[in-house]
Amino acid sequence: MGSSSAAPWKQLLIGSIQANSHLKHYSYFQLATISPNSRPSNRTVVFRGFQDESDRILINTDTRSRKIDDLKHCPFAEICWYFTESWEQFRISGPVDVIDGMNPDPVKLQQREKSWFACSLRSRMQYMAPTPRVSVYEQPSQTQTPSLDPSIGPVGAFCLLVLDPDQVDYLNLKTNERLIFTSGLGVDGEKLWTSQNVNP
Amino acid sequence: MGSSSAAPWKQLLIGSIQANSHLKHYSYFQLATISPNSRPSNRTVVFRGFQDESDRILINTDTRSRKIDDLKHCPFAEICWYFTESWEQFRISGPVDVIDGMNPDPVKLQQREKSWFACSLRSRMQYMAPTPRVSVYEQPSQTQTPSLDPSIGPVGAFCLLVLDPDQVDYLNLKTNERLIFTSGLGVDGEKLWTSQNVNP
Repeated sequence: MGSSSAAPWKQLLIGSIQANSHLKHYSYFQLATISPNSRPSNRTVVFRGFQDESDRILINTDTRSRKIDDLKHCPFAEICWYFTESWEQFRISGPVDVIDGMNPDPVKLQQREKSWFACSLRSRMQYMAPTPRVSVYEQPSQTQTPSLDPSIGPVGAFCLLVLDPDQVDYLNLKTNERLIFTSGLGVDGEKLWTSQNVNP
Repeated sequence: MGSSSAAPWKQLLIGSIQANSHLKHYSYFQLATISPNSRPSNRTVVFRGFQDESDRILINTDTRSRKIDDLKHCPFAEICWYFTESWEQFRISGPVDVIDGMNPDPVKLQQREKSWFACSLRSRMQYMAPTPRVSVYEQPSQTQTPSLDPSIGPVGAFCLLVLDPDQVDYLNLKTNERLIFTSGLGVDGEKLWTSQNVNP
């Protein structure tokens, strides 16, 4: 058991990302939330990097998707990220900040804009598609591809999620090692991480 | 929109399993549950087939793992199964039956025994390992590998989970198609599936 203010699991995760980066799906993970009907919900999303120099994880989503309702009902999520090449699993748990275009914080709106411009044009186009989960007969796809000015900022449906990890459970199926990282608060109120080597 | 008593998503899933079966991780999916502290929980587990001829999904687990506490608190789970080769995602939701050695139903105990013998000896040995999540210093691994008689039935820690799907959300990222399958009850009380073609 040790303690550290820098997230000790972050370096481990960066190593796994690098070891698996030749695979198209290396950046895909599963995000679990709780639905308003109190049932668990689970879907694949894409890792969009860390927020600046922090250990907070960025995910882009559509404001019209159900995970927004889930997170408004219960703000906690757990990521399960399995790396198929290195046989490592990270379970990353914490509260999620939902940043849509109506957010009153100008710093957060700036972060949302930054994430928008970091997306490919093809990714940005998805936020202009017909409403998810609506019948294709009720709301068919446009036959003409809508055009999008690359210099235009985020459209209304674009939403940034920021997951602030408070526990990380790391499992290595090759070495059979498991480490649990837990965050607490230091004397100056800063996030402090402790880790424990446990049985898999 | 159509309706059917045979699960129409099952054939789709079997097709995806076959298309991805050359990959070691094809049978791994993420199972989301709700913890007793009302936070979502998510981990990778292994598909162990369907229960007999039904559409119910089998998963083996350790009675000492946290998902058992989760499922006793809230019996619902959602599987997220992403196929990395065919770019297909199945989100399979429903209640889970937890079958451990104390189960009073002899038919369920028989199903548990069947699942035990379907496991490799190596897999069976995992249920004799030190308690998961306990510090390796408190409860170190045995230096001598315990021996296991292949004819002996399930050990106490072996637990069978049976997920009974009531909704399946299928997404194909190559064709950009999404189908939502929902179960209801037919006039004779049998499970009846309807499907809807929706926007991704």
